[in-house]
Amino acid sequence: MLTFDREDLLFQLFKVANVDDILAAERYAHLDETTVHGILDAAEQLAVDFFEPIARKADEEEPTIVDGKVQLIPEAQGAIDAYIESGFMAAGFEQDIDGSDLPETVMQAAFFILATANVAYTGYGLLTTAAGRLLAKFASDEQKKDYLLPMVAGRFFATMCLSEPHAGSSLADIRTTATPNDDGSYAISGNKMWISSGDHELSENIVHLVMAKIPGGPAGVKGISLFIVPKYRLDADGNPGETNDVTLAGLNHKMGYRGITNCAMNFGDNGQCIGYLVGQEHKGLSYMFHMMNEARIFVGVGATALGQAGYQASLNYARERPQGRHPDAKGADSNQVAIIEHADIRRLLLAQKAAVEPAFALGLYCAKLVDITRSSDDQSKIDEANLLLEMLTPITKSWPSEFCLESNKHALQVLGGAGYTRDYPIERYYRDNRLNPIHEGTHGIQGLDFLGRKSRMLDGTGLQLLIEKIKASIDLAKQTDASKEMAGQLETALTTFEAVSSHLIKQLEKDPRAALANATLYLDLGGHIVMAWMHFRIVIATATVSSNEDFVKGKWQSARYFFNRELVRSKQWSETLLASESSAHDMQDSWF
Amino acid sequence: MLTFDREDLLFQLFKVANVDDILAAERYAHLDETTVHGILDAAEQLAVDFFEPIARKADEEEPTIVDGKVQLIPEAQGAIDAYIESGFMAAGFEQDIDGSDLPETVMQAAFFILATANVAYTGYGLLTTAAGRLLAKFASDEQKKDYLLPMVAGRFFATMCLSEPHAGSSLADIRTTATPNDDGSYAISGNKMWISSGDHELSENIVHLVMAKIPGGPAGVKGISLFIVPKYRLDADGNPGETNDVTLAGLNHKMGYRGITNCAMNFGDNGQCIGYLVGQEHKGLSYMFHMMNEARIFVGVGATALGQAGYQASLNYARERPQGRHPDAKGADSNQVAIIEHADIRRLLLAQKAAVEPAFALGLYCAKLVDITRSSDDQSKIDEANLLLEMLTPITKSWPSEFCLESNKHALQVLGGAGYTRDYPIERYYRDNRLNPIHEGTHGIQGLDFLGRKSRMLDGTGLQLLIEKIKASIDLAKQTDASKEMAGQLETALTTFEAVSSHLIKQLEKDPRAALANATLYLDLGGHIVMAWMHFRIVIATATVSSNEDFVKGKWQSARYFFNRELVRSKQWSETLLASESSAHDMQDSWF
Repeated sequence: MLTFDREDLLFQLFKVANVDDILAAERYAHLDETTVHGILDAAEQLAVDFFEPIARKADEEEPTIVDGKVQLIPEAQGAIDAYIESGFMAAGFEQDIDGSDLPETVMQAAFFILATANVAYTGYGLLTTAAGRLLAKFASDEQKKDYLLPMVAGRFFATMCLSEPHAGSSLADIRTTATPNDDGSYAISGNKMWISSGDHELSENIVHLVMAKIPGGPAGVKGISLFIVPKYRLDADGNPGETNDVTLAGLNHKMGYRGITNCAMNFGDNGQCIGYLVGQEHKGLSYMFHMMNEARIFVGVGATALGQAGYQASLNYARERPQGRHPDAKGADSNQVAIIEHADIRRLLLAQKAAVEPAFALGLYCAKLVDITRSSDDQSKIDEANLLLEMLTPITKSWPSEFCLESNKHALQVLGGAGYTRDYPIERYYRDNRLNPIHEGTHGIQGLDFLGRKSRMLDGTGLQLLIEKIKASIDLAKQTDASKEMAGQLETALTTFEAVSSHLIKQLEKDPRAALANATLYLDLGGHIVMAWMHFRIVIATATVSSNEDFVKGKWQSARYFFNRELVRSKQWSETLLASESSAHDMQDSWF
Repeated sequence: MLTFDREDLLFQLFKVANVDDILAAERYAHLDETTVHGILDAAEQLAVDFFEPIARKADEEEPTIVDGKVQLIPEAQGAIDAYIESGFMAAGFEQDIDGSDLPETVMQAAFFILATANVAYTGYGLLTTAAGRLLAKFASDEQKKDYLLPMVAGRFFATMCLSEPHAGSSLADIRTTATPNDDGSYAISGNKMWISSGDHELSENIVHLVMAKIPGGPAGVKGISLFIVPKYRLDADGNPGETNDVTLAGLNHKMGYRGITNCAMNFGDNGQCIGYLVGQEHKGLSYMFHMMNEARIFVGVGATALGQAGYQASLNYARERPQGRHPDAKGADSNQVAIIEHADIRRLLLAQKAAVEPAFALGLYCAKLVDITRSSDDQSKIDEANLLLEMLTPITKSWPSEFCLESNKHALQVLGGAGYTRDYPIERYYRDNRLNPIHEGTHGIQGLDFLGRKSRMLDGTGLQLLIEKIKASIDLAKQTDASKEMAGQLETALTTFEAVSSHLIKQLEKDPRAALANATLYLDLGGHIVMAWMHFRIVIATATVSSNEDFVKGKWQSARYFFNRELVRSKQWSETLLASESSAHDMQDSWF
């Protein structure tokens, strides 16, 4: 079963995101349109042959511990091996370390395909990519040789160990310690929680990137350092040797994302855990933040992919399932119609389409910004891309996590009772997607970031840049009759958003608690405006499509639905924000 | 772990719903306040001792088929036996058939308690109650003796067999046949789908109420008749004897509600299935509709109970879990605060409180209407109660199913990663609750009922009655300073709702497809207005509470939140409806 729409994906990548701009950069001289098509072919093949066929089983038979070792379904190893053989582990690294250096835009498009098929199984590779990129940037040459190169080769996998049982969102409070040994290494001791891919037998070794505090260092986040802590220490030849006192304390039993292990890990229970400092002492958090933007794009695109898969499955069902009749043709002697004929089913489908399309456009837009920072030779463009990326990251992470989850809810509703069973994949998508508003910074924390940090960044120049970009699209949309009215709608919403922003920024100075109490709503408001902008980018790009009139009409209708049913919400949200509505802020513990 | 708030439940039952009015009726002379407290005690005991402790296990170990028989967890039988022994099977039946004849208001309050603990396990009893009430009304004396009395005694359980694999919402298209035998019985043949409690070993016999068509009868719903089809035929003594060719075709593997079996059933695979006509030929659907209103109240209250359980669990967690600091006190040397201190967590909690409270108030309000129809000696009051019940039923079923599901989403978010695991019950509540917008008429079908049927019922007198009732509450709220402003808000919303209603009713005449395309939104609009009204009923009732100031303040704050954050949505929804927004209606299959 194909879980995505190839025509649509190519349109998004080549016509909306214009990946050609990136392929033209010198850095990507080893790639052209044909090689990109080949990469997407490989992703599709991997999705169809390996990832999708075992997604249900991987969900139903969650990882267990047998004789102290993690046991996955037997098909897992083959799927992960195929991922590596298809080149997706090497894809995210530069050529000088044996990577094939794909642009992030192409990476995200390929990831999107795989995530529609089996989002949980993409995690093993992606975590290794993310950790590896951090090492590529900050690790010593020796560390790169020992740990990074085997990761690029797919021999070692990696994890990020940030959270602890008592410290999830609040990294300032981690307690894991790293005490210097005489040989320059560190003795690691502590407990980590929510470690995805924390233990398994899929790779020769697992390279944990562990956040820990060196005793005597600064309090809070300023005292966090980053360490390489392998599951197995390396022998003289660089192969995994003796164990490193890293133990699996338990597996978390999750609602979804069950194909990937999620672990409680103990480091140094027996005082025998060795770690190696990455970069400088106390700089750990800044290293981690270096890859945070990219990781958050992956979360958003993953949420969007689940939205897409649900849309695809519910659309197929709605076209095939006969049930009921039109309200003006109720006679039982007439044939039943396919449920896609019912307006409320079309609403449920269109709501999904109108959420998934701009969310994916934003994911690729942000990926392209990453590519610009990596490949442009114009520093002002790099600075601009970085700034825009900072502004958009909380939205690209959060909006799909919230609204493509809503899409999955709609998809399930299209199928009714059937959707509620495991005979169809939608209930799984819905369960998988529920993770996305939680990890990599909760929805609420993204709101605090967007309002508390980003809106005021560099004296508001980031916000101004974002607004200018949107205005430019509005001006373009005004030139086409079909989008003139929508352009007016977005212009009004944007003007109000500017007023809301200055109101909140002023309030932040006077009463930060009261202002931040509504940060999530401000994030949603910004998100809806950005998504309306993305709808513009999509319909404007349809001018280049001549072959498929239905496809183009669908994009316009999707935009119309979004403007008429979703963007309109921005008015009430703005009023709520401008009024500094404070019922939650005023609520007292004892009143609950 | 207590999954509900006893003080709050008593307030809702005695102060908001004023169950005393019902207890005063002659029919309920066998009950008083003390006996009602005793019934609630029994429900709480059953919840705490039997239902809640096995809820997780019943979810994790879903029913299986072993040697052709359904196998539940071993604890199931004890829990169901305790339900019967506590008197809850007899509670829903009149005294002349050995029931204890509880008012529906008290039934719903007790059900609410049980459903917060283990909603799936309430199904076995409730289905038997619902089917039994239908038999009490329409079955012959002999049928009552043979089947109903053993149901009241808890020896036989019962099911409703409506849907078929090809006919879920569209009952007009069922194909199961009932061919007259010479002895007055019928030969039943057909396949039924989505049969909750369709097979199990919990009771001596299972009495299926099967919808089927007698060959030669009218087409569509006018040709549906209702049959008693036992799993085991009765011997001369009325005990279960030989099998009746009713076979379990399979169990559905559901996302939630896993404690109760959901079955595909075959009737008469070997031509040996006998059924007994209930009442008259071709009247089956009207009999079924007789119990539909009550069944739909149960769905709404069940959804609300899940909302309540999630609220309770997330509130407990938020009070106990330290994490992070206030935005103006970020120093890492300070202690972390309990997360309930964070405004966004308070928002997530308050949103739940503001949804669950009015939803429960509406459930009890509707139950009381049922009680009035059963116990009043004033025909005009009975007629009014029936009419109001018709109007409110789509809302009392749908609104909690949609918005208390949203509450569970919020509850999970309060716990973050922990909420996503089975270590806490919230992900289960969320999965369970996802069924409620589907069964007993989907959300979309309730919308069609509310707009297409109810809004025009008896020339609009039903709608007018509902509006008058709300206006009376507004007038009352205007008299109190604290609620004056909210009264104005609701008055405005209600006036707009009236305009929307006449707009849509006119459009229904001219273009039913276009009008009904927005029926779901109209239902949500009506739902929000009714919930605002319920908030009024709650805050007005707090005038009778003197002992707990925090409790009262909490009710007011809950109402304030709802008016400021939810009722405000009615403005945009009304605009959308008045504009006859038609993007979904206009969408074409080929454009998807």
